[in-house]
Amino acid sequence: MEFYKNLKFKDEVPKYIQVANFIKNLIDKRKIKEGDKLPTIRSLSKELGVNNVTIVSAYNKLKSEGYAYQKVGSGTYAKIKDVSSSFRKEYSRALKKISTKDLTEVVDFTGETTGEVLFPIDDLKYIINEVLERDGANALLSENRNGYTNLINTINKVFWNSKLNEEDIIIVSGAQQGIDIASKGILNINDNIIVEKPTYVGALSVFKWRKVNLFEVPIEEDGINLDKFEKILQKNKIRCFYTMSYFQNPTGISYSLEKKKRILQLAQIYDFYIIEDDYLSELIYEQSLDYIPFKWLDTNNRVIYIKSFSKIFLPGIRLGYLVAPTLFREVLQNSKHNTDITTSSLMQRALELYIASGRWKENIKYLNDEYIERYTYMKFILDEEFKDIITYIDPKGGLNFYLTLKDNMIDTKELFIELIKRDVYITPGAMFFTSQMYGQDSFRISFYQTDKYKIEKGMKILKEVLLDLTEKNNKK
Amino acid sequence: MEFYKNLKFKDEVPKYIQVANFIKNLIDKRKIKEGDKLPTIRSLSKELGVNNVTIVSAYNKLKSEGYAYQKVGSGTYAKIKDVSSSFRKEYSRALKKISTKDLTEVVDFTGETTGEVLFPIDDLKYIINEVLERDGANALLSENRNGYTNLINTINKVFWNSKLNEEDIIIVSGAQQGIDIASKGILNINDNIIVEKPTYVGALSVFKWRKVNLFEVPIEEDGINLDKFEKILQKNKIRCFYTMSYFQNPTGISYSLEKKKRILQLAQIYDFYIIEDDYLSELIYEQSLDYIPFKWLDTNNRVIYIKSFSKIFLPGIRLGYLVAPTLFREVLQNSKHNTDITTSSLMQRALELYIASGRWKENIKYLNDEYIERYTYMKFILDEEFKDIITYIDPKGGLNFYLTLKDNMIDTKELFIELIKRDVYITPGAMFFTSQMYGQDSFRISFYQTDKYKIEKGMKILKEVLLDLTEKNNKK
Repeated sequence: MEFYKNLKFKDEVPKYIQVANFIKNLIDKRKIKEGDKLPTIRSLSKELGVNNVTIVSAYNKLKSEGYAYQKVGSGTYAKIKDVSSSFRKEYSRALKKISTKDLTEVVDFTGETTGEVLFPIDDLKYIINEVLERDGANALLSENRNGYTNLINTINKVFWNSKLNEEDIIIVSGAQQGIDIASKGILNINDNIIVEKPTYVGALSVFKWRKVNLFEVPIEEDGINLDKFEKILQKNKIRCFYTMSYFQNPTGISYSLEKKKRILQLAQIYDFYIIEDDYLSELIYEQSLDYIPFKWLDTNNRVIYIKSFSKIFLPGIRLGYLVAPTLFREVLQNSKHNTDITTSSLMQRALELYIASGRWKENIKYLNDEYIERYTYMKFILDEEFKDIITYIDPKGGLNFYLTLKDNMIDTKELFIELIKRDVYITPGAMFFTSQMYGQDSFRISFYQTDKYKIEKGMKILKEVLLDLTEKNNKK
Repeated sequence: MEFYKNLKFKDEVPKYIQVANFIKNLIDKRKIKEGDKLPTIRSLSKELGVNNVTIVSAYNKLKSEGYAYQKVGSGTYAKIKDVSSSFRKEYSRALKKISTKDLTEVVDFTGETTGEVLFPIDDLKYIINEVLERDGANALLSENRNGYTNLINTINKVFWNSKLNEEDIIIVSGAQQGIDIASKGILNINDNIIVEKPTYVGALSVFKWRKVNLFEVPIEEDGINLDKFEKILQKNKIRCFYTMSYFQNPTGISYSLEKKKRILQLAQIYDFYIIEDDYLSELIYEQSLDYIPFKWLDTNNRVIYIKSFSKIFLPGIRLGYLVAPTLFREVLQNSKHNTDITTSSLMQRALELYIASGRWKENIKYLNDEYIERYTYMKFILDEEFKDIITYIDPKGGLNFYLTLKDNMIDTKELFIELIKRDVYITPGAMFFTSQMYGQDSFRISFYQTDKYKIEKGMKILKEVLLDLTEKNNKK
């Protein structure tokens, strides 16, 4: 209540508007945080010496303007005004509609739907049958809370040269669950955490739900801006840093070895932890890019490593794993157990056999061959056709390009809306920021769902629409 | 900090002990809550006018006594003293060892392991292959966030006579996830919630993690004690009530129709929500017990219904669903999405085909036939052999009996320890309470993993050990 003492009423403006504006200001300045409960009508009217009706009207105004929301039977809560949230809904709705369209015509550069999957279905059938034949009922029983022991063992052998302590590995139902489990396990309300800017919105949602304070640090070509990073560390007790070390989503950048080393040093100095989200590192197209995740360099037990198999194995089979620092082993195991007991046993066994039998490596090779062709072709078109209107950082791997318009007359949300009229889908930059003030001049295109034919078609339409919009906006 | 002003030091006792005792008292009285951060060393020493060392020693004392815990780089936090937590670990460890034993010898009355599964594996193989044949790659892609549309439709048709709004159904990865999602979706820090006493510990963990205030209401033969329930409602703003309406875990009781109706009335009057955890209602052995869950009676959109398939379908295939009141539809969908995006697509499709093809009903019939025999036999033994030493409420269904010793000379944790020496496993009552002060005279036995032969063998050993212990304790 102490904030409200500073409110001095003026005569010329209705009191309820003054109350609403006063609270809006506190929210904009983050003195009142997202999800904070506003005082009850009664207590605030008493505190300010006004009628109940004044407060009711003020709260209604806040609600109608998106600065507050009502919880049935619980009161009114503050909401950080997010102009882009209505656009987020529009974006989701548009993506949902894709599946109702003629998929041979649609060009989906969002990478967020999965009309096509480069996976030999017969292999999976064979593997599942083999697992059921081999393990019988065991394939259908619950695993222990860390996961299927043979899968843990195989992951350690194939991906880590048996260097991990297998007790530190936890099988999770996809990377999103990994982030949720890590968040529940190590973060408390009001903990400070640093994220990349821009970053993956699914992680932001988890952190916001946990009611932590977010600090954002801009991404550069080789990782976050270290000066800004360290300034935050100096002024705030930071609990953890969430990072995508390879093909950062959405920017596509990968961290340089120097930055990774320095961040690990800083973690030790300032005593924070690193949540490393490794979602795509299998797809490296240029030899100049070495694969050395934070976790490999982690001599001080600072890194919670989360690996997703969804993009690479099968999107509908939610599987991934997490490597916990020994310190957090138990709390993360409990966090997993409380979240969903265990991950589907049959799927764990299928993945294990898939990796152990060598099919995993074969398929990665096949995926690399396929995607490198798309990557090269898209880069070729960007360099040939878009060099006057767009800049980008070469990701050297992964599935996305993050493009920035040279002419910032166009808002990429507008571009999105124009493009869907012609059945081409992109992801506007605003989707990756907490505030729509950012990302207006950038957008992400993915070749996950587009073969060469679709890349050609989609990029042609993209250029036409971009030039149209530029012309239109110039005339205004 | 305001609490600490009341601490007045006396001369005769070391100050650090006085500080520790003062805080212990605050924790015991719940003025400081589980997980609350204790003041920093510096601020408390300043506040109390003592040396830093005094506070460090006080905190160390609290930690060594289980009243506080350290978070690396974050400070010291209060912990509700739970004497039983070391026993919980002992219990888990013992259960883990079961799998290393000769399973033909072990009698596992805990119902928490799954050595045996009454499920035709060949059926599942057939179904999975049929799904892969029929749907091809689609079976491996992500579903929309609510789940596989046909499964939602089939659930509505087969289990709800198509009366539900299908947009209110969300497929989840088992009931535990349902509880986690509901908790994240509708509960805030410091919300008040009511739980049954005793209750399912997996739910308690989720709620504690969400940092809510728990109120416990004792279970009677036909549901919770309504007087105590309403007294809590009168004095506190309650957000929700978590209940298992059929074969409550561990007590095995089911709610009478009257109590369900009254609780729904109270929900409307006092404006709270009901989380109904329906984990076993398919197993009803006595016709006198009608199946009418809260959700059927829910005319005011008060019930979040969570259905588990784990015990009935397959424990290793984490599947269940949640029916959300329309009001919470969106927040619960988002909560699911942030938790793990979606539930395994292939398994959703397999379950759908399993239900739609009629195999579900066949298998339920088979399970009922099998379990009713075990239930009847166990009841027969209890009535014949244990009537002088044990009381119980007839569950009329489900998989468990909850037994109470007439002679409370024996602590059932002690009984547990003696029984595992003879390879018989039970679940002591203390496992279902937040404090080990309760449940010492009761324990749960399940026939989920015991056929008639094992029931006979196990109950014989149980009786011997019980009589031995009674004799031993009487001599003391």
